[in-house]
Amino acid sequence: MRADAKKNHSHILAVAREVITEHGADASMRDISRRAGVGLATLLRHFPTREALFEALLCTNLDALTQKADVLETSNSPDEALVSWFREWVAFTQSYKGVVALMAAAHTNPDSALYASCAAVHSASARLLLRAQADGTARTDMNGDDLFGLMAALGWVVDLPSFATRADHLFHIIASAILTNPSRNIAERAAC
Amino acid sequence: MRADAKKNHSHILAVAREVITEHGADASMRDISRRAGVGLATLLRHFPTREALFEALLCTNLDALTQKADVLETSNSPDEALVSWFREWVAFTQSYKGVVALMAAAHTNPDSALYASCAAVHSASARLLLRAQADGTARTDMNGDDLFGLMAALGWVVDLPSFATRADHLFHIIASAILTNPSRNIAERAAC
Repeated sequence: MRADAKKNHSHILAVAREVITEHGADASMRDISRRAGVGLATLLRHFPTREALFEALLCTNLDALTQKADVLETSNSPDEALVSWFREWVAFTQSYKGVVALMAAAHTNPDSALYASCAAVHSASARLLLRAQADGTARTDMNGDDLFGLMAALGWVVDLPSFATRADHLFHIIASAILTNPSRNIAERAAC
Repeated sequence: MRADAKKNHSHILAVAREVITEHGADASMRDISRRAGVGLATLLRHFPTREALFEALLCTNLDALTQKADVLETSNSPDEALVSWFREWVAFTQSYKGVVALMAAAHTNPDSALYASCAAVHSASARLLLRAQADGTARTDMNGDDLFGLMAALGWVVDLPSFATRADHLFHIIASAILTNPSRNIAERAAC
């Protein structure tokens, strides 16, 4: 991609994120192109369908999440890093309606545009878990798949309107099952 | 409903359960009527749509689940009753694909045919939790809504093919967060 096209691509993605955050995933392509100051044809050249745009958006969000794991891994204690990252995950799942179901499907489908980013999130969580297990601060009878399962489960349920307000507390309960000394990391932050 | 119509109704439901267990929720109405030994018109008089039949089936399953809670409440210690019932729930969610998402939607929709049965399951779980909390065997910083949320979360994730084999272990992890002395009730039964 040429430099100006790349700039346009990033600009459209940033605007699309704003519009979708404001209006939900049903925001029209026309609204996005208008706000981005480009013609609809230009938008469609970058993202032929709304799904393609949504997937590209999610990829950047998932990749940002993976980068946060890398930062946490080098700057925090193992249990703090694990909990902080799990919390980042919950916030991410609440950013777009239906994102967890989409990820759960993409995670086992190598043809999905989200596959690589999902795999990276899975690896990052497994790495943070292993680090905390080696440190003695996370239970050792679970693996990265279990953690990813718990993350998906929690992410799905807090996306439902009837459980959204309990998100922090449900997070707190599940995190307390993972950590060997949960009060050190989660008690004071959670709204019980 | 007349006695023979009621008998027919129960018979069709029992057969439908068999067919759907064997062939999934896509089993045809024609297959069900054939196996039940009734005409398609008779089947449609009892259940005008596949959805109506599926809902009726789920209602009987949910009501059976609620009855199990009643039995457990009178015959088991509070923590045993809570864990056994949570386990019954997981088995139930694995019986029909997509059942948890359906329940999650029905639970907040008073117009749904499943609403009353969902509410009864919610009440039963809250009652079992309260009983264990009063006994000092369940954490006291959660309520019936939280328990229902955890049940929904777990039920949803173990319905995904990639997590189905970890169902018992994920159950074990979440149950360990709810009970104050989890090793007494779940450690020896779970496949870790």
